[in-house]
Amino acid sequence: MIRIAIFGFGAVGQGVAEILMNRERIERWIGEYRVVAVADSKGSICDENGISLKEALEAKKKGSLPPGMSVMDIIDSIDFDVAIEATPTNIETGEPGLSYIKACLNKGCHVVTSNKGPLVVAYKELAELAERKGVRLMFEATVGGAMPLIKLAKRDIAGNEILSIKGILNGTCNYILSRMEQERLSYHQILSEAQELKIAEANASYDVEGIDSAAKLVILANAVMGMDVSFNDVEVVGITSITPEAFEIAMEKGYTIRLIAEASRDGLRVSPRLLPLHHPLAVRGTLNAVLIQTDLAREIFVIGRGAGKIETASAIISDLIDIYSHDSSN
Amino acid sequence: MIRIAIFGFGAVGQGVAEILMNRERIERWIGEYRVVAVADSKGSICDENGISLKEALEAKKKGSLPPGMSVMDIIDSIDFDVAIEATPTNIETGEPGLSYIKACLNKGCHVVTSNKGPLVVAYKELAELAERKGVRLMFEATVGGAMPLIKLAKRDIAGNEILSIKGILNGTCNYILSRMEQERLSYHQILSEAQELKIAEANASYDVEGIDSAAKLVILANAVMGMDVSFNDVEVVGITSITPEAFEIAMEKGYTIRLIAEASRDGLRVSPRLLPLHHPLAVRGTLNAVLIQTDLAREIFVIGRGAGKIETASAIISDLIDIYSHDSSN
Repeated sequence: MIRIAIFGFGAVGQGVAEILMNRERIERWIGEYRVVAVADSKGSICDENGISLKEALEAKKKGSLPPGMSVMDIIDSIDFDVAIEATPTNIETGEPGLSYIKACLNKGCHVVTSNKGPLVVAYKELAELAERKGVRLMFEATVGGAMPLIKLAKRDIAGNEILSIKGILNGTCNYILSRMEQERLSYHQILSEAQELKIAEANASYDVEGIDSAAKLVILANAVMGMDVSFNDVEVVGITSITPEAFEIAMEKGYTIRLIAEASRDGLRVSPRLLPLHHPLAVRGTLNAVLIQTDLAREIFVIGRGAGKIETASAIISDLIDIYSHDSSN
Repeated sequence: MIRIAIFGFGAVGQGVAEILMNRERIERWIGEYRVVAVADSKGSICDENGISLKEALEAKKKGSLPPGMSVMDIIDSIDFDVAIEATPTNIETGEPGLSYIKACLNKGCHVVTSNKGPLVVAYKELAELAERKGVRLMFEATVGGAMPLIKLAKRDIAGNEILSIKGILNGTCNYILSRMEQERLSYHQILSEAQELKIAEANASYDVEGIDSAAKLVILANAVMGMDVSFNDVEVVGITSITPEAFEIAMEKGYTIRLIAEASRDGLRVSPRLLPLHHPLAVRGTLNAVLIQTDLAREIFVIGRGAGKIETASAIISDLIDIYSHDSSN
């Protein structure tokens, strides 16, 4: 019987809960399980015999989880085997997720996280802690949403040397740029449109300044390419000063513009770059697209949904299954 | 000490041998190993203490492997742990690979194959035999060359229901069609050009009639989508009657034409289809491109090298590593 705790109950946490309610689907992969705690910054529901996810989702829909134990109290006092950590990202301090993840790993629990902050701030420390405790730290959902980028690069192409990873890691920027490509409207017009459509947040600076892409690039560099870099090692330029005229000129020559994050032995950078219109990375809309360049397999492109409640939850669920179905991988 | 036997020593078998000569690279993943046999239809080199791959490659370069034990004799009389089966494909009988794979699995050895024939003819039987014997049958190299399609679909997105798989599974056809798109030349002109460039074989019918794509589709349907289908279940139309005029009309409307293989609950088919010019599957050149449609992660595209000596060998090596590095997957 696998006991699961869910920390953070925003869109992603709720998406995970919704999928876990489909017991038939999940038990086929990992056998019996129960969720023993759901908690966020406002409240929690706990029961070592298993809580009702339906109840938790309904409480949240009506406002918030009922007042209850804090996440740290739950980690201290409730037994569970794996934590799903989906609290809000802070890429400067990693908190509160960083403390939660450390406490869970120290307790000997596996952790599946969708939270970039803790990994950007302390990947190496967390990976070593998990290793020392004999548990797994999984974070597929932190980069590329539903795309199985990390498992692919770390495992499926084993034996290859990864020469570089580059691509589009932020769907909001890609939406804006691909609309500019198609409509030749100004950056500000498209941004407003994206904000109305809820594709961009009211404060979009985290996305459009390239910060989100840079955070994801740091995770890929450390976790997949074996580098030891931090956020400050990334040279970052956002998309805010790209003009319709720049697109005009690019497209006359058969090119478009995309915000490309790239990690290689030459360094890490996020910047708007020209791509041939027919390049596989020149995707449109909110898609993410990544090119992994290796010495044997050569180019491998992965394209998919970089965000979304159920899409991100899908990556968390696949990580969870991965922890518990090692022997049935064939 | 892992003992490896290589059966089939054409381009792919030689590619595997070349990679295995880089002992430092491979031992990092699987520990110590030796190759105890290399054999093809003309000859073989065997030594339970380990053969020289350099010698085998040189013999082949000069003509052929020296006369020696047959593959079946080697399977009967030499101890090994894993067979790499890369003999020529016959999708009607599966032979000789089918008999080799069965004999190896029956002996209790893992098998890594790049050979479509045995899987098209007898996937279910082989998968059950491997399961019963407690060994693994790996076949990433059979579909999409270097692209980690099978591991991705079977494992990395676990928890998802796969609704359909569709895409471009034959690089020769894609080369011809994307050149027709760009140059508006006739099918026959481009085919001749491709044959000169060795992108197409002298007898290209296996590729251009859609047979190769259909064989790969059968493998994906059975192995990844849990179907139980055979080659005759695929409705197949090739690319031989596509005219420059068809491209003219398609492109006026913003479309191109590609040979698309698709498996879904509605059936299996390979046929030329219209794709929007900006669709991620509308790749150019000899690339392969596959769209896996699932219920949670939604669309996942994988694009990469569908063929090539080292690229295909890369998939075999990753399979080999997968067998022996289960515990270090994190």
